[in-house]
Amino acid sequence: MPHANFSIGIFIFPGVTQLDFTGPYEVFSRIPNVKIFLFAQSKDPVQSESGMKLIPDFDFADCPDLDILLVPGGPGTTLLMEEFTVLDFLKRKTVNSRFITSVCTGSLVLASAGLLDGYKATTHWMSLDVLKLFPVQISSERFVKDRNRITGGGVTAGIDFALFLTAEFFGSELAEEIQLMIEYNPAPPFTSGHPTTATSHLVDKVKSNREITQNRRKAAAIRVLTSKNAWSKS
Amino acid sequence: MPHANFSIGIFIFPGVTQLDFTGPYEVFSRIPNVKIFLFAQSKDPVQSESGMKLIPDFDFADCPDLDILLVPGGPGTTLLMEEFTVLDFLKRKTVNSRFITSVCTGSLVLASAGLLDGYKATTHWMSLDVLKLFPVQISSERFVKDRNRITGGGVTAGIDFALFLTAEFFGSELAEEIQLMIEYNPAPPFTSGHPTTATSHLVDKVKSNREITQNRRKAAAIRVLTSKNAWSKS
Repeated sequence: MPHANFSIGIFIFPGVTQLDFTGPYEVFSRIPNVKIFLFAQSKDPVQSESGMKLIPDFDFADCPDLDILLVPGGPGTTLLMEEFTVLDFLKRKTVNSRFITSVCTGSLVLASAGLLDGYKATTHWMSLDVLKLFPVQISSERFVKDRNRITGGGVTAGIDFALFLTAEFFGSELAEEIQLMIEYNPAPPFTSGHPTTATSHLVDKVKSNREITQNRRKAAAIRVLTSKNAWSKS
Repeated sequence: MPHANFSIGIFIFPGVTQLDFTGPYEVFSRIPNVKIFLFAQSKDPVQSESGMKLIPDFDFADCPDLDILLVPGGPGTTLLMEEFTVLDFLKRKTVNSRFITSVCTGSLVLASAGLLDGYKATTHWMSLDVLKLFPVQISSERFVKDRNRITGGGVTAGIDFALFLTAEFFGSELAEEIQLMIEYNPAPPFTSGHPTTATSHLVDKVKSNREITQNRRKAAAIRVLTSKNAWSKS
Protein backbone atom coordinates (compact mmCIF):
# COMPACT_ATOMS: atom_id res chain seq x y z
CA MET A 1 0.00 0.00 0.00
CA PRO A 2 1.45 3.35 -0.92
CA HIS A 3 0.30 4.98 2.29
CA ALA A 4 1.56 2.68 4.98
CA ASN A 5 3.04 4.74 7.82
CA PHE A 6 2.18 7.96 6.05
CA SER A 7 1.89 10.75 8.61
CA ILE A 8 -0.30 13.85 8.60
CA GLY A 9 0.47 16.36 11.33
CA ILE A 10 -1.85 19.23 12.17
CA PHE A 11 -0.39 22.17 14.07
CA ILE A 12 -2.75 23.56 16.72
CA PHE A 13 -2.33 26.73 18.78
CA PRO A 14 -4.36 28.99 21.10
CA GLY A 15 -7.03 30.80 19.09
CA VAL A 16 -7.14 28.25 16.27
CA THR A 17 -10.43 28.06 14.35
CA GLN A 18 -11.33 24.46 15.07
CA LEU A 19 -13.39 23.74 11.94
CA ASP A 20 -10.39 24.71 9.78
CA PHE A 21 -8.75 21.44 10.85
CA THR A 22 -11.57 19.28 12.25
CA GLY A 23 -13.00 19.09 8.71
CA PRO A 24 -9.75 17.84 7.12
CA TYR A 25 -9.04 15.63 10.19
CA GLU A 26 -12.35 13.83 9.64
CA VAL A 27 -11.49 13.21 5.97
CA PHE A 28 -7.83 12.22 6.49
CA SER A 29 -8.56 9.95 9.47
CA ARG A 30 -10.59 7.72 7.13
CA ILE A 31 -7.57 6.97 4.89
CA PRO A 32 -6.35 3.44 5.74
CA ASN A 33 -2.89 3.17 7.35
CA VAL A 34 -2.39 6.88 7.68
CA LYS A 35 -1.24 8.24 11.03
CA ILE A 36 -2.96 11.52 11.78
CA PHE A 37 -2.10 13.63 14.82
CA LEU A 38 -2.33 17.07 16.41
CA PHE A 39 0.85 18.76 17.60
CA ALA A 40 1.40 21.99 19.49
CA GLN A 41 4.25 23.99 20.94
CA SER A 42 3.75 22.24 24.30
CA LYS A 43 1.63 19.35 25.58
CA ASP A 44 -0.80 21.66 27.39
CA PRO A 45 -4.43 21.55 26.24
CA VAL A 46 -5.06 24.01 23.43
CA GLN A 47 -8.13 26.23 23.50
CA SER A 48 -9.68 27.08 20.14
CA GLU A 49 -11.00 30.51 19.16
CA SER A 50 -14.42 29.44 20.38
CA GLY A 51 -13.32 27.74 23.60
CA MET A 52 -13.11 24.08 22.58
CA LYS A 53 -10.32 22.38 24.55
CA LEU A 54 -8.15 19.88 22.66
CA ILE A 55 -5.23 17.75 23.82
CA PRO A 56 -2.29 17.69 21.37
CA ASP A 57 -0.78 14.27 20.66
CA PHE A 58 2.75 15.67 20.40
CA ASP A 59 4.73 18.81 21.14
CA PHE A 60 7.68 20.34 19.26
CA ALA A 61 10.09 18.08 21.16
CA ASP A 62 8.59 14.71 20.16
CA CYS A 63 6.64 15.54 16.99
CA PRO A 64 7.16 12.74 14.43
CA ASP A 65 8.25 13.39 10.84
CA LEU A 66 5.55 15.04 8.75
CA ASP A 67 4.67 13.65 5.33
CA ILE A 68 1.98 16.30 5.27
CA LEU A 69 1.91 19.42 7.43
CA LEU A 70 -1.42 21.20 7.83
CA VAL A 71 -1.57 24.63 9.44
CA PRO A 72 -5.12 25.80 10.18
CA GLY A 73 -6.08 29.45 10.67
CA GLY A 74 -7.84 31.49 13.27
CA PRO A 75 -7.36 34.70 15.30
CA GLY A 76 -4.28 33.09 16.91
CA THR A 77 -2.34 33.28 13.64
CA THR A 78 -1.66 37.02 14.06
CA LEU A 79 0.68 36.30 16.99
CA LEU A 80 2.19 33.23 15.29
CA MET A 81 3.23 35.31 12.27
CA GLU A 82 5.93 36.79 14.49
CA GLU A 83 6.70 33.73 16.64
CA PHE A 84 10.07 32.91 15.13
CA THR A 85 10.43 29.74 17.24
CA VAL A 86 7.26 28.42 15.62
CA LEU A 87 8.12 29.57 12.10
CA ASP A 88 11.60 28.09 12.40
CA PHE A 89 10.21 24.77 13.70
CA LEU A 90 7.72 24.48 10.82
CA LYS A 91 10.43 25.32 8.28
CA ARG A 92 12.96 22.80 9.62
CA LYS A 93 10.36 20.09 10.21
CA THR A 94 9.06 20.18 6.62
CA VAL A 95 12.37 20.02 4.72
CA ASN A 96 11.49 16.48 3.59
CA SER A 97 7.67 16.74 3.66
CA ARG A 98 5.63 15.61 0.67
CA PHE A 99 3.07 18.38 1.08
CA ILE A 100 3.02 21.63 3.02
CA THR A 101 -0.57 22.77 3.42
CA SER A 102 -2.86 25.23 5.16
CA VAL A 103 -6.51 26.12 5.54
CA CYS A 104 -7.87 29.64 6.03
CA THR A 105 -5.39 32.09 7.57
CA GLY A 106 -2.95 29.23 8.22
CA SER A 107 -1.36 30.37 4.95
CA LEU A 108 -0.29 33.61 6.65
CA VAL A 109 1.81 31.50 9.03
CA LEU A 110 3.32 29.54 6.13
CA ALA A 111 3.98 32.81 4.29
CA SER A 112 5.62 34.33 7.38
CA ALA A 113 7.92 31.31 7.53
CA GLY A 114 8.84 31.94 3.87
CA LEU A 115 7.26 28.60 2.93
CA LEU A 116 5.03 30.14 0.25
CA ASP A 117 7.68 32.36 -1.38
CA GLY A 118 7.19 32.09 -5.15
CA TYR A 119 4.08 29.92 -4.82
CA LYS A 120 0.46 30.48 -5.81
CA ALA A 121 -1.75 30.32 -2.72
CA THR A 122 -5.02 31.35 -1.09
CA THR A 123 -6.54 32.16 2.32
CA HIS A 124 -9.81 33.34 3.91
CA TRP A 125 -11.33 35.93 1.53
CA MET A 126 -10.91 38.67 4.13
CA SER A 127 -7.15 38.07 4.42
CA LEU A 128 -6.23 37.91 0.73
CA ASP A 129 -4.91 41.48 0.95
CA VAL A 130 -2.64 40.47 3.85
CA LEU A 131 -1.33 37.41 2.00
CA LYS A 132 -0.52 39.51 -1.05
CA LEU A 133 1.97 41.57 0.97
CA PHE A 134 4.21 38.47 0.87
CA PRO A 135 6.03 37.28 -2.27
CA VAL A 136 3.08 34.98 -2.98
CA GLN A 137 0.84 34.87 -6.05
CA ILE A 138 -2.61 35.06 -4.51
CA SER A 139 -5.74 33.36 -5.83
CA SER A 140 -9.33 33.39 -4.63
CA GLU A 141 -10.03 29.78 -5.63
CA ARG A 142 -11.53 27.49 -2.94
CA PHE A 143 -8.16 25.73 -2.71
CA VAL A 144 -4.95 26.05 -4.69
CA LYS A 145 -2.29 23.46 -5.48
CA ASP A 146 1.08 24.71 -6.68
CA ARG A 147 3.71 21.97 -6.76
CA ASN A 148 3.70 20.56 -3.22
CA ARG A 149 1.91 23.42 -1.56
CA ILE A 150 -1.87 23.22 -1.15
CA THR A 151 -3.71 26.08 0.52
CA GLY A 152 -7.42 26.26 1.26
CA GLY A 153 -9.74 29.27 1.54
CA GLY A 154 -11.75 30.10 4.67
CA VAL A 155 -12.79 27.53 7.30
CA THR A 156 -15.12 25.10 5.47
CA ALA A 157 -12.86 25.13 2.38
CA GLY A 158 -10.79 22.62 4.39
CA ILE A 159 -13.28 19.84 3.64
CA ASP A 160 -13.02 20.32 -0.14
CA PHE A 161 -9.24 20.73 0.14
CA ALA A 162 -8.91 17.49 2.12
CA LEU A 163 -11.02 15.45 -0.30
CA PHE A 164 -8.99 16.86 -3.21
CA LEU A 165 -5.69 16.01 -1.50
CA THR A 166 -6.94 12.51 -0.64
CA ALA A 167 -7.85 11.92 -4.30
CA GLU A 168 -4.57 13.40 -5.50
CA PHE A 169 -2.43 11.23 -3.27
CA PHE A 170 -4.48 8.11 -2.53
CA GLY A 171 -6.81 7.89 -5.53
CA SER A 172 -10.25 9.21 -6.33
CA GLU A 173 -12.08 5.98 -5.39
CA LEU A 174 -11.03 6.36 -1.76
CA ALA A 175 -11.89 10.08 -1.75
CA GLU A 176 -15.33 9.31 -3.19
CA GLU A 177 -15.88 6.63 -0.55
CA ILE A 178 -14.97 9.06 2.23
CA GLN A 179 -17.28 11.70 0.73
CA LEU A 180 -20.14 9.16 0.85
CA MET A 181 -19.32 8.11 4.43
CA ILE A 182 -19.36 11.70 5.68
CA GLU A 183 -22.48 12.35 3.59
CA TYR A 184 -20.86 15.40 2.04
CA ASN A 185 -23.74 16.45 -0.12
CA PRO A 186 -23.97 20.05 1.04
CA ALA A 187 -27.17 22.08 0.94
CA PRO A 188 -26.26 25.52 2.31
CA PRO A 189 -29.42 27.32 3.41
CA PHE A 190 -28.20 30.64 1.92
CA THR A 191 -25.99 31.80 -0.94
CA SER A 192 -23.98 34.00 1.39
CA GLY A 193 -20.91 31.75 1.63
CA HIS A 194 -18.62 33.89 -0.52
CA PRO A 195 -18.26 37.68 -1.00
CA THR A 196 -19.11 37.24 -4.70
CA THR A 197 -22.51 35.74 -3.84
CA ALA A 198 -23.39 37.47 -0.54
CA THR A 199 -25.12 40.86 -0.57
CA SER A 200 -22.76 43.84 -0.59
CA HIS A 201 -24.47 45.05 2.59
CA LEU A 202 -23.43 41.84 4.37
CA VAL A 203 -19.88 41.89 2.99
CA ASP A 204 -19.44 45.52 4.12
CA LYS A 205 -20.84 44.75 7.57
CA VAL A 206 -18.48 41.78 8.12
CA LYS A 207 -15.46 43.73 6.82
CA SER A 208 -16.26 46.73 8.99
CA ASN A 209 -16.66 44.56 12.13
CA ARG A 210 -13.26 42.98 11.53
CA GLU A 211 -11.34 46.07 10.45
CA ILE A 212 -9.20 46.36 13.59
CA THR A 213 -8.33 42.64 13.51
CA GLN A 214 -7.40 42.80 9.84
CA ASN A 215 -5.28 45.92 10.34
CA ARG A 216 -3.38 44.12 13.11
CA ARG A 217 -2.70 41.28 10.69
CA LYS A 218 -1.45 43.64 8.02
CA ALA A 219 0.86 45.33 10.52
CA ALA A 220 2.21 41.93 11.61
CA ALA A 221 2.86 40.98 7.98
CA ILE A 222 4.74 44.22 7.36
CA ARG A 223 6.85 43.72 10.49
CA VAL A 224 7.68 40.12 9.61
CA LEU A 225 8.63 41.09 6.06
CA THR A 226 10.87 43.87 7.36
CA SER A 227 12.60 41.65 9.91
CA LYS A 228 12.80 38.59 7.69
CA ASN A 229 16.30 39.02 6.39
CA ALA A 230 17.58 39.36 9.91
CA TRP A 231 15.67 36.25 10.98
CA SER A 232 16.74 34.09 8.02
CA LYS A 233 20.40 34.81 8.72
CA SER A 234 20.14 34.03 12.43
CA MET B 1 -31.46 40.48 22.86
CA PRO B 2 -33.47 37.29 22.67
CA HIS B 3 -30.42 35.07 23.05
CA ALA B 4 -28.74 36.42 26.15
CA ASN B 5 -27.63 33.51 28.35
CA PHE B 6 -28.98 31.00 25.84
CA SER B 7 -27.14 27.70 26.32
CA ILE B 8 -26.28 25.04 23.76
CA GLY B 9 -24.90 21.82 25.20
CA ILE B 10 -23.25 19.15 23.07
CA PHE B 11 -23.01 15.66 24.53
CA ILE B 12 -19.70 13.94 23.73
CA PHE B 13 -18.74 10.32 24.38
CA PRO B 14 -15.99 7.83 23.46
CA GLY B 15 -16.23 6.98 19.76
CA VAL B 16 -18.07 10.17 18.78
CA THR B 17 -17.60 11.31 15.17
CA GLN B 18 -16.02 14.68 15.81
CA LEU B 19 -17.15 16.46 12.63
CA ASP B 20 -20.79 15.70 13.57
CA PHE B 21 -20.48 18.32 16.31
CA THR B 22 -17.40 20.40 15.42
CA GLY B 23 -19.32 21.70 12.37
CA PRO B 24 -22.35 22.87 14.41
CA TYR B 25 -20.04 24.08 17.24
CA GLU B 26 -18.27 26.40 14.78
CA VAL B 27 -21.60 27.83 13.62
CA PHE B 28 -23.24 28.15 17.05
CA SER B 29 -20.14 29.63 18.71
CA ARG B 30 -20.49 32.65 16.40
CA ILE B 31 -23.96 33.55 17.75
CA PRO B 32 -23.53 36.52 20.11
CA ASN B 33 -24.28 35.92 23.82
CA VAL B 34 -24.82 32.20 23.42
CA LYS B 35 -23.05 29.88 25.81
CA ILE B 36 -21.87 26.77 24.01
CA PHE B 37 -20.25 23.84 25.81
CA LEU B 38 -19.32 20.17 25.60
CA PHE B 39 -20.50 17.83 28.33
CA ALA B 40 -19.76 14.16 28.96
CA GLN B 41 -20.57 11.48 31.49
CA SER B 42 -17.39 12.34 33.42
CA LYS B 43 -14.73 15.05 33.20
CA ASP B 44 -12.15 12.68 31.67
CA PRO B 45 -10.89 13.60 28.18
CA VAL B 46 -13.06 12.06 25.48
CA GLN B 47 -11.48 10.34 22.50
CA SER B 48 -13.33 10.61 19.20
CA GLU B 49 -13.80 7.78 16.71
CA SER B 50 -10.63 8.93 14.97
CA GLY B 51 -8.51 9.57 18.05
CA MET B 52 -8.96 13.30 18.63
CA LYS B 53 -8.84 14.04 22.36
CA LEU B 54 -11.27 16.62 23.72
CA ILE B 55 -11.83 17.97 27.22
CA PRO B 56 -15.51 18.26 28.21
CA ASP B 57 -16.50 21.51 29.91
CA PHE B 58 -19.01 19.78 32.20
CA ASP B 59 -20.03 16.32 33.35
CA PHE B 60 -23.46 14.95 34.24
CA ALA B 61 -23.08 16.28 37.78
CA ASP B 62 -22.52 19.96 36.92
CA CYS B 63 -24.00 20.27 33.41
CA PRO B 64 -25.96 23.57 33.16
CA ASP B 65 -29.52 23.74 31.87
CA LEU B 66 -29.80 23.08 28.15
CA ASP B 67 -31.79 25.43 25.95
CA ILE B 68 -30.61 23.27 23.08
CA LEU B 69 -29.27 19.73 23.39
CA LEU B 70 -27.21 18.37 20.51
CA VAL B 71 -26.31 14.69 20.37
CA PRO B 72 -23.77 13.86 17.66
CA GLY B 73 -23.29 10.37 16.22
CA GLY B 74 -20.45 7.95 15.71
CA PRO B 75 -19.58 4.31 16.38
CA GLY B 76 -19.92 5.00 20.11
CA THR B 77 -23.68 5.42 19.79
CA THR B 78 -24.25 1.66 19.59
CA LEU B 79 -23.23 1.26 23.24
CA LEU B 80 -25.07 4.43 24.30
CA MET B 81 -28.36 3.11 22.92
CA GLU B 82 -28.40 0.73 25.90
CA GLU B 83 -26.75 2.99 28.50
CA PHE B 84 -29.83 3.72 30.53
CA THR B 85 -27.94 6.13 32.82
CA VAL B 86 -27.17 8.27 29.76
CA LEU B 87 -30.62 7.97 28.21
CA ASP B 88 -32.26 8.82 31.51
CA PHE B 89 -29.98 11.85 32.00
CA LEU B 90 -30.73 13.22 28.52
CA LYS B 91 -34.45 12.71 29.05
CA ARG B 92 -34.55 14.43 32.44
CA LYS B 93 -32.19 17.23 31.43
CA THR B 94 -34.26 18.25 28.41
CA VAL B 95 -37.71 18.47 30.01
CA ASN B 96 -37.61 22.27 29.63
CA SER B 97 -35.31 22.50 26.57
CA ARG B 98 -36.32 24.66 23.62
CA PHE B 99 -34.84 22.25 21.08
CA ILE B 100 -33.72 18.62 21.25
CA THR B 101 -31.42 17.90 18.33
CA SER B 102 -29.01 15.41 16.83
CA VAL B 103 -26.65 14.96 13.92
CA CYS B 104 -25.92 11.64 12.18
CA THR B 105 -26.51 8.56 14.37
CA GLY B 106 -27.07 10.78 17.39
CA SER B 107 -30.75 10.37 16.54
CA LEU B 108 -30.48 6.67 17.49
CA VAL B 109 -29.56 7.79 21.01
CA LEU B 110 -32.50 10.23 21.13
CA ALA B 111 -34.78 7.47 19.78
CA SER B 112 -33.51 5.00 22.38
CA ALA B 113 -34.35 7.55 25.08
CA GLY B 114 -37.87 7.78 23.63
CA LEU B 115 -37.23 11.42 22.73
CA LEU B 116 -38.24 10.97 19.09
CA ASP B 117 -41.41 8.91 19.70
CA GLY B 118 -44.06 10.21 17.31
CA TYR B 119 -41.67 12.64 15.59
CA LYS B 120 -40.38 12.85 12.03
CA ALA B 121 -36.58 12.48 12.03
CA THR B 122 -33.48 11.50 10.07
CA THR B 123 -30.00 10.03 10.53
CA HIS B 124 -26.94 8.93 8.50
CA TRP B 125 -28.26 7.28 5.31
CA MET B 126 -26.82 3.93 6.36
CA SER B 127 -28.75 3.93 9.64
CA LEU B 128 -32.21 4.92 8.38
CA ASP B 129 -33.29 1.27 8.61
CA VAL B 130 -32.23 1.18 12.28
CA LEU B 131 -34.06 4.42 13.09
CA LYS B 132 -37.23 3.09 11.50
CA LEU B 133 -37.40 0.26 14.05
CA PHE B 134 -38.38 2.96 16.57
CA PRO B 135 -41.80 4.67 16.62
CA VAL B 136 -40.31 7.45 14.47
CA GLN B 137 -41.39 8.66 11.05
CA ILE B 138 -38.13 8.54 9.11
CA SER B 139 -37.07 10.92 6.35
CA SER B 140 -33.99 11.06 4.16
CA GLU B 141 -33.87 14.86 4.01
CA ARG B 142 -30.54 16.52 4.92
CA PHE B 143 -32.13 17.72 8.16
CA VAL B 144 -35.65 17.51 9.53
CA LYS B 145 -37.53 19.83 11.88
CA ASP B 146 -40.65 18.50 13.57
CA ARG B 147 -41.93 20.78 16.31
CA ASN B 148 -38.92 21.21 18.65
CA ARG B 149 -36.91 18.26 17.38
CA ILE B 150 -34.31 18.86 14.67
CA THR B 151 -32.29 15.94 13.39
CA GLY B 152 -29.51 16.06 10.80
CA GLY B 153 -28.30 13.44 8.34
CA GLY B 154 -24.74 12.08 8.23
CA VAL B 155 -21.69 13.98 9.54
CA THR B 156 -21.43 17.12 7.33
CA ALA B 157 -25.23 17.59 7.41
CA GLY B 158 -24.52 19.17 10.81
CA ILE B 159 -23.27 22.36 9.16
CA ASP B 160 -26.48 22.87 7.16
CA PHE B 161 -28.56 21.88 10.20
CA ALA B 162 -26.76 24.42 12.41
CA LEU B 163 -27.14 27.29 9.94
CA PHE B 164 -30.83 26.42 9.57
CA LEU B 165 -31.33 26.33 13.35
CA THR B 166 -29.45 29.63 13.75
CA ALA B 167 -31.73 31.28 11.17
CA GLU B 168 -34.83 29.74 12.71
CA PHE B 169 -34.04 30.93 16.20
CA PHE B 170 -31.83 34.00 15.81
CA GLY B 171 -32.81 35.31 12.37
CA SER B 172 -31.54 34.73 8.85
CA GLU B 173 -29.27 37.80 8.78
CA LEU B 174 -27.08 36.35 11.52
CA ALA B 175 -27.06 32.92 9.86
CA GLU B 176 -26.04 34.49 6.55
CA GLU B 177 -23.26 36.43 8.26
CA ILE B 178 -21.94 33.25 9.89
CA GLN B 179 -22.09 31.44 6.54
CA LEU B 180 -19.96 34.22 5.00
CA MET B 181 -17.47 34.16 7.91
CA ILE B 182 -16.93 30.40 7.62
CA GLU B 183 -16.82 30.77 3.82
CA TYR B 184 -19.42 28.04 3.45
CA ASN B 185 -19.56 27.99 -0.30
CA PRO B 186 -18.97 24.28 -0.78
CA ALA B 187 -17.43 22.78 -3.91
CA PRO B 188 -17.35 19.02 -3.34
CA PRO B 189 -14.84 17.42 -5.72
CA PHE B 190 -17.18 14.49 -6.45
CA THR B 191 -20.93 13.85 -6.57
CA SER B 192 -20.57 10.85 -4.27
CA GLY B 193 -21.91 12.54 -1.11
CA HIS B 194 -25.26 10.74 -1.05
CA PRO B 195 -26.37 7.21 -2.02
CA THR B 196 -28.73 8.69 -4.61
CA THR B 197 -25.83 10.38 -6.45
CA ALA B 198 -22.92 7.98 -5.79
CA THR B 199 -22.37 4.97 -8.07
CA SER B 200 -24.20 1.83 -6.99
CA HIS B 201 -20.81 0.05 -6.91
CA LEU B 202 -19.59 2.51 -4.25
CA VAL B 203 -22.81 2.35 -2.21
CA ASP B 204 -22.67 -1.47 -2.20
CA LYS B 205 -19.00 -1.45 -1.20
CA VAL B 206 -19.58 0.91 1.74
CA LYS B 207 -22.67 -1.01 2.89
CA SER B 208 -20.88 -4.34 2.67
CA ASN B 209 -17.85 -3.05 4.66
CA ARG B 210 -20.15 -1.82 7.43
CA GLU B 211 -22.57 -4.76 7.54
CA ILE B 212 -21.38 -6.14 10.90
CA THR B 213 -21.47 -2.70 12.53
CA GLN B 214 -24.95 -1.99 11.19
CA ASN B 215 -26.24 -5.39 12.33
CA ARG B 216 -24.94 -4.66 15.83
CA ARG B 217 -26.88 -1.39 15.79
CA LYS B 218 -30.06 -3.12 14.69
CA ALA B 219 -29.68 -5.70 17.45
CA ALA B 220 -29.16 -2.92 20.01
CA ALA B 221 -32.29 -1.13 18.77
CA ILE B 222 -34.34 -4.32 19.07
CA ARG B 223 -33.05 -4.96 22.60
CA VAL B 224 -33.75 -1.40 23.72
CA LEU B 225 -37.26 -1.52 22.26
CA THR B 226 -37.94 -4.80 24.02
CA SER B 227 -36.64 -3.59 27.37
CA LYS B 228 -38.09 -0.10 27.08
CA ASN B 229 -41.27 -0.60 29.03
CA ALA B 230 -39.29 -2.05 31.89
CA TRP B 231 -36.89 0.90 31.78
CA SER B 232 -39.55 3.62 31.55
CA LYS B 233 -41.27 2.26 34.64
CA SER B 234 -38.07 2.04 36.67
